[in-house]
Amino acid sequence: MNKVSVLGAGSWGSALALVLAKNGFDVSMWTLNEEQCNYINKNRENIEYLPGVHIPENITTTVNLEEAVVGSEIIVLAVPSQAIRMVCQQIKPFITDDQILVDVAKGLESNTGLRLSDVCKEELYNNKYVALSGPSHAEEVSKEIPTTVVVSSHDMNAAEKVQDAFMNSNFRVYINQDIIGVELGGALKNIIAFGAGICDGLGYGDNAKAALMTRGIREISRLGVAMGAEESTFSGLTGIGDLIVTCTSMHSRNRRAGILIGQGKSLEETLEEVKMVVEGITATKVAYEVSKKLNIDMPITSAIYSVLYDNSNPNEVVAELMMRKKVHEMEDISR
Amino acid sequence: MNKVSVLGAGSWGSALALVLAKNGFDVSMWTLNEEQCNYINKNRENIEYLPGVHIPENITTTVNLEEAVVGSEIIVLAVPSQAIRMVCQQIKPFITDDQILVDVAKGLESNTGLRLSDVCKEELYNNKYVALSGPSHAEEVSKEIPTTVVVSSHDMNAAEKVQDAFMNSNFRVYINQDIIGVELGGALKNIIAFGAGICDGLGYGDNAKAALMTRGIREISRLGVAMGAEESTFSGLTGIGDLIVTCTSMHSRNRRAGILIGQGKSLEETLEEVKMVVEGITATKVAYEVSKKLNIDMPITSAIYSVLYDNSNPNEVVAELMMRKKVHEMEDISR
Repeated sequence: MNKVSVLGAGSWGSALALVLAKNGFDVSMWTLNEEQCNYINKNRENIEYLPGVHIPENITTTVNLEEAVVGSEIIVLAVPSQAIRMVCQQIKPFITDDQILVDVAKGLESNTGLRLSDVCKEELYNNKYVALSGPSHAEEVSKEIPTTVVVSSHDMNAAEKVQDAFMNSNFRVYINQDIIGVELGGALKNIIAFGAGICDGLGYGDNAKAALMTRGIREISRLGVAMGAEESTFSGLTGIGDLIVTCTSMHSRNRRAGILIGQGKSLEETLEEVKMVVEGITATKVAYEVSKKLNIDMPITSAIYSVLYDNSNPNEVVAELMMRKKVHEMEDISR
Repeated sequence: MNKVSVLGAGSWGSALALVLAKNGFDVSMWTLNEEQCNYINKNRENIEYLPGVHIPENITTTVNLEEAVVGSEIIVLAVPSQAIRMVCQQIKPFITDDQILVDVAKGLESNTGLRLSDVCKEELYNNKYVALSGPSHAEEVSKEIPTTVVVSSHDMNAAEKVQDAFMNSNFRVYINQDIIGVELGGALKNIIAFGAGICDGLGYGDNAKAALMTRGIREISRLGVAMGAEESTFSGLTGIGDLIVTCTSMHSRNRRAGILIGQGKSLEETLEEVKMVVEGITATKVAYEVSKKLNIDMPITSAIYSVLYDNSNPNEVVAELMMRKKVHEMEDISR
């Protein structure tokens, strides 16, 4: 049986390990946390991240990175965006050029603003890179509830290999050739999800949230196009599709963090309470800075930036967004 | 004080009457139902459609259509799509050419497939017509929770007049010049909302629903473009924005009807239980027929059509949609 690796044993890494295991692979799942590792191997459950879901015998969890990656066809990077570079550096001594990297984190590197494919390229130049993204709560995937995702790569053979590995009757994998758009959609949508959370936290309703999402996807698509993406990707599964799932779910830590900010909590208090990485906060900073450099108008992102980093009052900022003077829909939205 | 008319005293008509009343108009609201009329005038509450919301003194409810429309600048048509033609015929003897019609129903005429602007034009050729649409639960509008909508017309002066009448700090009105797209987005999105309901009824999750919505908006935009609309309108407030609000809310009777069908109820049982007009069912039939004529591929609409009119099993139909063979996202979606 062929071996694949999943680095990271959070909810998304574990759910994808389950998909691969169901498809007949021997899955080696790596985690930093020794206690978690032993618990999963012994009790066949990832109690913290996917409670109640059985982990089959063809998933082996390990804390040994070398053991995890040696001999795998495919290495799934299921760690937070800011840890991708470090993990690439750590696996470098153990891997060979024919192993395919599959990134499933959705973010941008915080200090460089790089897409994760570029981070991987800097560290592991010779390995093929595939991004996997789309509207996919881990909890639903782990329960085999139908889900569709997209893979994208500069190398179509690699993309097809990854598609074949993951595809089954409940997990549909499409290919989209616009890797820049796929990566940016996944990363930037977290800004809007965070904004939708702020709306919820302020007590706004579904009407305002739908308006924010509609205008939000337009503005991130504007930035994306300026960064080299195809506009149509943002109206696909990895753009609006993922935004919809994220904005309407309490599973989303981006949305949850936004709710706390909307309720008046500070950034520090919010991060303390969510206790997990909030990709949208990093993405807001990166997008704000890139938009200034490229001279792209991003009213929602700027508003969120000012709440996060300039101590603006969320209520005033959202009221101001609602009150913007322009009155023609497409002018207002697409500029 | 200037007078405006709202024909129809359901939840949406009443909510819009409240907006206009807040903006200082004398609102004459017409209903067929004498009991409802008296109750509202006496108790200042539309107990069935907007319970708990105070109806102010500058809204007068009447069952007399002549009294309702005479002397108004603006006549809001807030009746179901299939009643628009009849109401136009009934007000014809009482109105003058300078009165502006504002249609707020979202549908297509069932036996002709016409957009409602064309229905109005056939009956009241000389009156300016404005469509008002967007993500707007009546319940939220009635509670002054921020909402954004779009108005569209072939006549920009009329559109601006209606924009001015409705606009206030909680109700933002944009103009979009693509009236075909605005009308079709509002009507056709009900098909996808109905499909989202079927998904929910089958016990599918948020991942599948987001995928259905993403692919759904693409397919109705394809049909819309073939019918003369601008593609960008479908990614605006009256397209994806309205779809998001509709698909995620139990307020939507389209979604509720879909849930019942997904749970295995027949079309007759469903209509019996929902007890209200389900615009998506009519829209499915019209869109299906037009798509056949124009040779537009609409897999989701066809699937829903076969459930409604050919007794197909919803579970099998949705499974088949998931299983479609094509594997490139943009090919699959945009053809």
